[in-house]
Formats: sequence, C-alpha cells, structure tokens
Amino acid sequence: MLSALLLGAALAPAPAVAAPADEAAIRVAALQDDVAWDFAEGLTTEVGPRPAGTPQEARARDWAVARLTALGFKNVRAEPYTMPVWVRGRDQANILAPFPQALVVAALGNSGSTGESGIEGEVAYFSSLAALEAAPEDQVRGKIAFVDHGMKATQDGSSYGYFGAARRQGPSVASKKGAIAILIRSIGTDNHRVPHTGVQMWAEGARPIPAGALTVPDAEQLVRVLHRGQPVKLHLVLTSRMLKDQPSGNVIAEIPGTDPAAGIIVAACHLDSWDQGTGAIDDATGCGIVAAAALQAAKAGQPRRTIRVLMAGAEEVGGDGARAYFKAHGSERHALAMESDFGADRVWRVDFKLPEGHGMLSDRIGQALAPLGVGASTQQAGGGADIAPLVKAGVPVIDLQQDGTRYFDIHHTPDDTLDKVDPLQLRQNVAAWAVTLHLAANAEESLADN
Amino acid sequence: MLSALLLGAALAPAPAVAAPADEAAIRVAALQDDVAWDFAEGLTTEVGPRPAGTPQEARARDWAVARLTALGFKNVRAEPYTMPVWVRGRDQANILAPFPQALVVAALGNSGSTGESGIEGEVAYFSSLAALEAAPEDQVRGKIAFVDHGMKATQDGSSYGYFGAARRQGPSVASKKGAIAILIRSIGTDNHRVPHTGVQMWAEGARPIPAGALTVPDAEQLVRVLHRGQPVKLHLVLTSRMLKDQPSGNVIAEIPGTDPAAGIIVAACHLDSWDQGTGAIDDATGCGIVAAAALQAAKAGQPRRTIRVLMAGAEEVGGDGARAYFKAHGSERHALAMESDFGADRVWRVDFKLPEGHGMLSDRIGQALAPLGVGASTQQAGGGADIAPLVKAGVPVIDLQQDGTRYFDIHHTPDDTLDKVDPLQLRQNVAAWAVTLHLAANAEESLADN
Repeated sequence: MLSALLLGAALAPAPAVAAPADEAAIRVAALQDDVAWDFAEGLTTEVGPRPAGTPQEARARDWAVARLTALGFKNVRAEPYTMPVWVRGRDQANILAPFPQALVVAALGNSGSTGESGIEGEVAYFSSLAALEAAPEDQVRGKIAFVDHGMKATQDGSSYGYFGAARRQGPSVASKKGAIAILIRSIGTDNHRVPHTGVQMWAEGARPIPAGALTVPDAEQLVRVLHRGQPVKLHLVLTSRMLKDQPSGNVIAEIPGTDPAAGIIVAACHLDSWDQGTGAIDDATGCGIVAAAALQAAKAGQPRRTIRVLMAGAEEVGGDGARAYFKAHGSERHALAMESDFGADRVWRVDFKLPEGHGMLSDRIGQALAPLGVGASTQQAGGGADIAPLVKAGVPVIDLQQDGTRYFDIHHTPDDTLDKVDPLQLRQNVAAWAVTLHLAANAEESLADN
Repeated sequence: MLSALLLGAALAPAPAVAAPADEAAIRVAALQDDVAWDFAEGLTTEVGPRPAGTPQEARARDWAVARLTALGFKNVRAEPYTMPVWVRGRDQANILAPFPQALVVAALGNSGSTGESGIEGEVAYFSSLAALEAAPEDQVRGKIAFVDHGMKATQDGSSYGYFGAARRQGPSVASKKGAIAILIRSIGTDNHRVPHTGVQMWAEGARPIPAGALTVPDAEQLVRVLHRGQPVKLHLVLTSRMLKDQPSGNVIAEIPGTDPAAGIIVAACHLDSWDQGTGAIDDATGCGIVAAAALQAAKAGQPRRTIRVLMAGAEEVGGDGARAYFKAHGSERHALAMESDFGADRVWRVDFKLPEGHGMLSDRIGQALAPLGVGASTQQAGGGADIAPLVKAGVPVIDLQQDGTRYFDIHHTPDDTLDKVDPLQLRQNVAAWAVTLHLAANAEESLADN
C-alpha cells in the first residue's frame, strides 16, 4: 500500500493546490534516495553496536566524520566530551524452585551488580509500577521485586511514556523498599526471547540494586509459574561495572546557508546505540534520514539558513551529547530544531511549535507533506532527547512523527538490526524531511525569536 | 478467518453428505477442548525445556505419567532406555576483524568443543551446501566454513528437507575438507536474533569440529561484512561435552479397545525438546493434541481398536525413543500409526498410506475432516520420526498435515514458547485428530495387513 502511495506521489500530476516545483522535485528525488540506506547499512555493518562512551562509539564518530565529509558536508567535525559509563557484564536468571529453568534477562543501564556468584531470592509479584508503589515495605524487603504490565503497541508510541515508568522509576522504588533486586517485564510489544534494556537513573537516596528486564515470553512464563501459588525462588547474575571519565562526543556537519543572521536549523539524531543490537532503527536510520534529507534539500540551491546535522553521542544513557551541544552552541542563533529518533517507518503526522504568526509556514509545510501521506496535526511539537535543551530554551521545533506501531517490538533489543528497516518507508522519511528542511531553511519568516 | 471457519463447523446444520452423528458430535466437543492447551501449558510451565537424556526429560516423563493417569488413560507407564547425551556449554562468536562485533550463535547437536578459550580463524564463505561440497580443499582447510542459503517459508514445510541439509551434512563435509569449524545460517525463516539449533551426525570418517548456527540477522550481517572484500577473522567459543548411558524413556498411555485382534493405533508425539526454548510447538502441543484427541474419540464409546498414545523420548537427537518403542513393541499387531510433530497451527491436508482396498475408509475420514477445512490429498503419507520404524515395517499411516508457514520461524530456537500457540488452531487439530482416530479405531476394515 505504501509502495502505491509513494509511486502515486512521484508520478501523479501536481495537485490542484500547486506545490512549488522545488518541493515536487525534492519529493521525487528523495523517494529514490540511497544515501539514508547506505548510511544505516554502513554504520550498522562497519561499526555495529556503539554504546556511549566506549571504543565502538568512538569508531562510529570516526566513521560518521569520514562519511559526512565524503558526502560533501562542510565543517564536519567531532566535538568531544567525557562521561561516566556503565558496562554490561554477564546476564543470567534461573528459576530454582518450584520448576527449575532458565529465563532470558538483560540488565538495565546503571544496574547494580550481583557479583560473579549472583544472588538468590524469592520473587514478589507486582502487576504494575503502581502496585509496587502501593505495596507495604514488608512485601518487598529482602525479595526480588517483579513488575509486570500490559503494554501494547500504539502508532504514536505514547504507551512508552506510561509503561516505561516501570523501567525508569521501578528500580528506585524497589530499592527504597528494601528489594534485593528488581526484574521488570520488558518495555516491549513483541513476543520474542529478546530482552529490552534501557537506562534508568537511581533516585536520590536509592541504593543501586541489580535491575533487569525479562523478555516478554519469560515474563509471561514467570507469571504462569507464580500463578501455581508456590514460592518462586530465583538465582540472578547481573554483573556490570562503572567507568569514570570516558571519551564520548557529538558529530556535526553543515550545509552552510547564505544568511548567517537567519539562524541555524538543527537536524538531529544520535550516533550511539544500545549494546545488544546494531542500533539500526535506534538510531542509525535517523542519522541516515537527516543526512540524506539535508543533501536532498540542498539540491534546490544553497539555502538561506545553515542546516546543521547533529549526530549526538550518548543519547541512550541520559543525553550527555545533547547537553554538551547546548553548552557549546546554545548561545548561537537557532531558528529551528528537529530530530529523527523513532525508527524508520513512515512519517504519518507533522506537529509544529512555531512562534506566533508562523501559520503560513506550517501551512506550506503541511501542503508539501500531504502528497507523502502525512497529515498535519494540532498537537504541539516537543522534539526529542537530542534537542531537548534547545527546545527547553525556546527554539522552535517541528516533529515529523514516525509510525511507532512496531517500534517497541525491536527497541533496545538484540533484534535492532538492519533487516528490520523497510527501504521504501525509509525513503518516505527522507522525502518528508527534505521538503520540510527546504521550506524551513528558505522561509522568509523570522522563526527564531529566542 | 479461522475463527469463523471453526464456528461455522460447530454451528452449521449437517452437510448434505451426512456425516454420522458421532463425528459431528466429536467435532463440536473437540472444538471446545481444553485438554490439549492445559497439557502444553502445564508441560512447558512446570517442566520447561526437556533435552533428551537429561534430568529435565526425566521430570517430563514423571509429569506426563501423572497427567495422563489423571486424565483417565489406562496402562500408563514410562519405558526407560539409556543413550549418549551431548550437553551444550557456552556459545559465543565475535568478529575480530575488520569490524569487531559480537554475533549470536548456538552450537548444533553433537558439535565438537572449542575448549574454554575458543578458536580463531578466517571465514570461508559458501553460498550453499552444494558450494561447500564443490569447493576444493584448499578453500576450506584451516578455515571457519560459513554456509549461507536462502530458505523461505512453505506451507508444507518441504523446504526444511532441502535447506536443512546444510545443518545435517554441512559439518561433516566441512570437517572432511579440513575446516577448523563450521557456521551455518540458521535453518529458519524468521529475522530475529534467536539461533536455530538442531542435531547433526558426524559421517563415517568425519572428525568432530565445532559446529554452530548463526541467527538469520547475524548470518546476513556476516555476509555484509564479507562483501566488503577484506579477510574476516572470527573468535568462536562453542563448548560442550558428551555423556554416556544417560537415562531416557518413552511414555505410553492407552484407551483399550474391545477387539485386541484388530490391532493397535499408535498416536505419537515426542516429550523431549531442544534446550533453548520450552518446546511448546515442538512438541508439547503435539502431545497435547494426541492425548486430547484420544479422549475425545473415546467419548463416543469404547473403540474397537486400542488407541495407544506414544510420547517418545529423544526425538530431537536421533530417535532413540522411536527405536526403543519398536524394539519393545514392534512385534505387536499395529493397525495404524500417526504422529503430531509440526507445531500447533491448523491441519490443512490429510495424506493416507493405507493397504489396498481401504478407499472407503479414507473417503469417510476425508468427509469427516472437510467441515474443519481439511482437504484430502493424493500424496502418500510418510509419518514422522517417532513412528518411522513402524512405517518402515509397513504399518499403515495417516498424516494430518499442519500448516507450517510459521513453523520455521520458531523451530529449535529460544522462541519456542507457549505464547506462539494459537488456542483456536490447537483445538482444530484436536478435532481433526479426534474424528480420524474415531473412524480408524472403529473401522470394520482390517487395516493391518503387515
């Protein structure tokens, strides 16, 4: 269906509400783009997994600088910073009683370590984070807390915010109530034996305890075992270590504009990935999309505004790269910030947060996106982690919302590999980004009023 | 769609070609069966993985004897034998150069061991088993042979025979040409980071070497890395050990017939599973189907022929259970053998291999299966591993062919877990088996002429 849609967009006569010839040409060209695919294929193949603050992430920066330079970007450079790094060791879980068997688990970011010999404990079941929060301490103390939940896929990914709290807050809540460890059902919508890791930060006063995610099938198995009514005893090995002051960095590349006073447009993604997969949809494709789209937009001629591609480091573990970028560049005039970090499935909706009086610009962008099947919404754009400090500082933002229906099948798992990327949908992303960047970069409107 | 089909079968008025009331009643009851689900749920939850010749398989026998006794079967017993057992250790693969990264691998059954420190070697690529067979020794000697292939899903599972040869014969071919190890692309049709293990036997004169399966995404990644044209060096750890004379066994349960001279009908499945999953579709559901169907068939009254449920041990590793059964029981009069060992998706076709002059019986069975959406074929039934010695000895056989379209997404992987089972399709299997067992067990025809 999408294929027909794209073909229609490419070949159909210009719509009654005429889009400027530039935008139609950009769409046609971008729907045949190979740059985004080649970028994602190259990064995931030649670097592979690239956890923040590790030598693999450093290789990714070198790789990206070389590729962006070869693609013709200007001012290509890495901007280094240092950060603390959590490093995964061994992840193992076994039911000891009543029904001995192995479970598949992955430690969450910043998990405490069990030590090599692991720990043993009885499981305390909680149907949700709210149930854990409501539980009296004596139901948690000395136990391995297990937090279940019923996350289902949504197109807009909104369920991640709600259910993801089990990962983000669950470990601290369990720790404060005296749990010896916490296991959560993976924040995922698949049914494969691939655990969804992800970062969590220890709240003030919460002692780090071992914290892991069971795969969805393993969580369901543990529920079945618990429903037999006997005490369930686990052996858990989650080893890890913390390193101080490791090198990380952002990569920046530009298409310089003709009018420096008109401000910079930041097109962001992140270069780091989780360690279990090759970070294909999170976020090699995002980086491929923004790089390819900037090049497609520039084919119409040098833009008025500089388009700055920001491939941030360390997004997965807390946004060190975004903060480093803002520290270095926050005082520059930013006209607009955008980010691609929700996979590679098609853009289905565009949200805006533009200054007062910019309704004509959002209308022009909405009209240019409509042939790609993208509907304009009245929701306010919010950006993502890599541009969060800019957005917080008041920089205008446009979100090209990607279809997240299958995103949480794959997110933060070993399954985040190149085969999950649909090349046709990837090209639709490039087209949507390219026309948006083109219109924003050349807009006569002022945009930046911050 | 299947749900509508089943509902139609259950509620529609009797078809113009009247099926006997017994068969219609059996279908209606079997389409509401809970026994098969409860059996598969119980075995996979309370025992979990049950590799042949291990304490887990012994627990599965105890569990099955207790469950079959509770269900009302007669002559329920385990029949022990001993066998050599291959035990998996640690499975790890890493690309050392040119692009360092981990690959997900599982050792194949009877793999040689690399030892704890593993081995290093350069990869030699072969696009198929035939390419490996055709290669001169100097392209293989001292290398890690990697055998790729292009298996795709089929409804009848026929591609397993062809592509599966890479697993069954590949290791021996590679060993004889001097390879230090062999990796194959998993014999699977999914794209998840779950490796498909499986047994392979060393051919006469082939020295055991480490032999493993990469997941499909990892095999594709290795191909991409190889296509860069640089030598690819791997570090491989596949540890394992062999144990002699370990206890295994079959479990047998009967619904005694009224006419011992009419011969026994064997309804087979296997109790053992691979070690990575819980053996839900391979073959807990098969055992649930045959047990449930025998009980449903018996509701119409004591059958003429004894229905003997055979839950074989050690199917996955070479059929020790099937041979032990034949050694103990091969001289008894067997009227018919059937086996359920291809998952839990719907029966779509029935194949026969009956003695001359039994066309009326196959017609009656075909007519009784038609309301379940099962078409009769002209292909000759061949049975499966658990009844192979009986079939070889000339016992008649009927195959209720299951839809294998998604079977090799899951087969022999960690993903073989209960969540993959569709309860509605499982019930359709019970219904198809129940009417077939009923008609065969009560047939006036002689059946056994062996």
